[in-house]
Amino acid sequence: MTVSLIIQKYGGSSVASTDHIRRVAMKVASTKIQGNKVAVVVSAMGRQTDQLLNLAAEISNNPSGREQDALVATGEQVCAALLAITLESLGHKAMSLMGLQLPLITDNVHTKARIIEMQTERIEHILSEDIIPVVAGFQGVTESGCISTLGRGGSDTTAVALAASLNAGCCEIYTDVNGVYTADPNICPKARHIKIISYQEMLELAGLGAKVLHSRSVELAQKYQVPLVVKSSFGGDKNTWIVNEEEVMENSIIKGVTLEKDVSKISLIRVPDRPGIAHKILSPLADAAINVDMIIQNASIDGYTDFTFTIPTTDLDKAKTLIDEVAREIDAQKMLAANNIVKVSAVGIGIKTNPGVASRMFHSLSAENINIEMISTSEYRISCVIEEKYGELAVRAVHKAFGLDKDNKEKAET
Amino acid sequence: MTVSLIIQKYGGSSVASTDHIRRVAMKVASTKIQGNKVAVVVSAMGRQTDQLLNLAAEISNNPSGREQDALVATGEQVCAALLAITLESLGHKAMSLMGLQLPLITDNVHTKARIIEMQTERIEHILSEDIIPVVAGFQGVTESGCISTLGRGGSDTTAVALAASLNAGCCEIYTDVNGVYTADPNICPKARHIKIISYQEMLELAGLGAKVLHSRSVELAQKYQVPLVVKSSFGGDKNTWIVNEEEVMENSIIKGVTLEKDVSKISLIRVPDRPGIAHKILSPLADAAINVDMIIQNASIDGYTDFTFTIPTTDLDKAKTLIDEVAREIDAQKMLAANNIVKVSAVGIGIKTNPGVASRMFHSLSAENINIEMISTSEYRISCVIEEKYGELAVRAVHKAFGLDKDNKEKAET
Repeated sequence: MTVSLIIQKYGGSSVASTDHIRRVAMKVASTKIQGNKVAVVVSAMGRQTDQLLNLAAEISNNPSGREQDALVATGEQVCAALLAITLESLGHKAMSLMGLQLPLITDNVHTKARIIEMQTERIEHILSEDIIPVVAGFQGVTESGCISTLGRGGSDTTAVALAASLNAGCCEIYTDVNGVYTADPNICPKARHIKIISYQEMLELAGLGAKVLHSRSVELAQKYQVPLVVKSSFGGDKNTWIVNEEEVMENSIIKGVTLEKDVSKISLIRVPDRPGIAHKILSPLADAAINVDMIIQNASIDGYTDFTFTIPTTDLDKAKTLIDEVAREIDAQKMLAANNIVKVSAVGIGIKTNPGVASRMFHSLSAENINIEMISTSEYRISCVIEEKYGELAVRAVHKAFGLDKDNKEKAET
Repeated sequence: MTVSLIIQKYGGSSVASTDHIRRVAMKVASTKIQGNKVAVVVSAMGRQTDQLLNLAAEISNNPSGREQDALVATGEQVCAALLAITLESLGHKAMSLMGLQLPLITDNVHTKARIIEMQTERIEHILSEDIIPVVAGFQGVTESGCISTLGRGGSDTTAVALAASLNAGCCEIYTDVNGVYTADPNICPKARHIKIISYQEMLELAGLGAKVLHSRSVELAQKYQVPLVVKSSFGGDKNTWIVNEEEVMENSIIKGVTLEKDVSKISLIRVPDRPGIAHKILSPLADAAINVDMIIQNASIDGYTDFTFTIPTTDLDKAKTLIDEVAREIDAQKMLAANNIVKVSAVGIGIKTNPGVASRMFHSLSAENINIEMISTSEYRISCVIEEKYGELAVRAVHKAFGLDKDNKEKAET
């Protein structure tokens, strides 16, 4: 039997207390006892990250990213040390490692840094000595030696990056949700569990607010062909495998329906329509690392156009300040901003080969009298921005329209 | 005016809450505004270290030193980041640094590591950019890259090591106690404040349970001639300067009286008296980094001797296990252990030049019917081990016997 290396990642709710950590340690130990090598990645315990951010908020409403990162990175470090202590108490050799100690090198965009390089010499040495490395997820170190963090959900990315760099057999992501579903079961009671899904589909789902996986982790898993599996830390067999498109046997046109709530839009009204205007408007946002999602530019009338785009609501204030300045520079008439909108999306690899999918989605929304404000499509996704209050209703309508409701499929799969 | 560099160290009670941290930041900022360069060293907030140790204790009653260090080091890191954020909110540039980031290199005796090297390139660069470095005290990194801690009170040592390496003008230690006193005012209400004291005297006081300064920090300050001053973080002018013997003008024979409670003794009864026996008994303790303090070996009778020594009570269990083994090896009749003892000491540079000091101390104890179990003396100190219950009484008796009581001196100095 060849020994295979498994990376296991445990999220905050899986390590919320020392009792939880003990359960996690048992799972890690049993994987090891079965003859595998294991490396573990952990998040901070429960609400620890928020508690640390609250401390910072007591002091300043605008702490520097660098110091905020140094502060919150302690959350994962505490958890990693406690898990290592627990594994040791079970008779296994274990060693906790901060991102700084691996080191996992990132760029210097604090609070949402991107990985530049995962150095593996140290962790390979640890594994070769039969020690279980317990890595503090979510964090790295900049080239100038400052602690950085990868943004919310960054521990998934740490785990996949580790799996890729170490050429692991697979990367197991343990969460408190019961795998991946065709829609959020809290919104859509008829949502079904998904057993297998392609990287591309999962990427769209992850990017659209299905809170199971961080989208950058899926991106990375696809790039380096890391087999990814989402498991429940509380037991049960509702696993979801994320693999290559070719390996997904039965393909429904639409795999899932998502609702993204953290969306805001900004419109610039009566922008003089000159070449390069979109670049002029959007580049300050890019410089500030604000992700612009949907972009709509109306047809030009009398040399003027309206320009609308969506961004995460968390970046709205910063974006408004930046765009307000741009508006004056380019002589736009005014800026409007709104955050009472949501984005409903249908995701599936069937979209690119089935031309009627978009209209089926639009029809299901109009049948419920829901007005569509913005539309965007990709090979794998159709998204509609609608009024916030219709969000849940829209998910259920689209879910049903594509035959995803539980009643339409065999009960055995539920 | 030449810009001088001041190292300021703030202990746990000085940074117990974000409000406390704000007050500390104001003090740091005002030192800077007065034209100095400042580097700050902080402890963990309030009882944070204990809370982290309690988490570990929920899991294991014997966590490895390495993982325990990785765990508790987060306490100082949190505090350093919060103070940096506060300084930034006051308009100053600041940067938090873990021991690992300086780096402060230590040996690998986890939980009580000793400094091997303080590298200063990074912090000098930070200072040259007019940024206030906020260093997480108490911690370092081993040569193999693991997080280490310097033991309780280690933040003092970090501060002095920094002052020495950076050739700072002085090192200010802010504590919640009101400077250094001739005795613990809680035990001895007539204790007086000490304005100036020599390194050697302070070293003896620090080593004997006067909780103001960590003795290794005083040792280091003496070695590198760093002027040290103990100040109250809550204001007031009760500063105590710690300087060279020559600089202490008015010298009383005895500077202070201390009570050390955390003392236990172990006796080996009827040890066959062979050459090298003391080494054989004590070397396992040295290997385990247990500090043996007083040692008494009785005159040999019929080739047998009794061997008694004292150790910190925190190490008693570990020491008993080790010595039990030694006892069998060397054929000692039996081992006795007790922790109901305390050590009372008189400290002062006058001891070496005043032959009558010891007998004056013994007389003051016998006048109170206190039996002396063990005695040890040095150039600067006379210590007596007595029964625990007489501890406070003994301090008051010795304090009075050497004319240290408030009433014996001018009131102005109190």
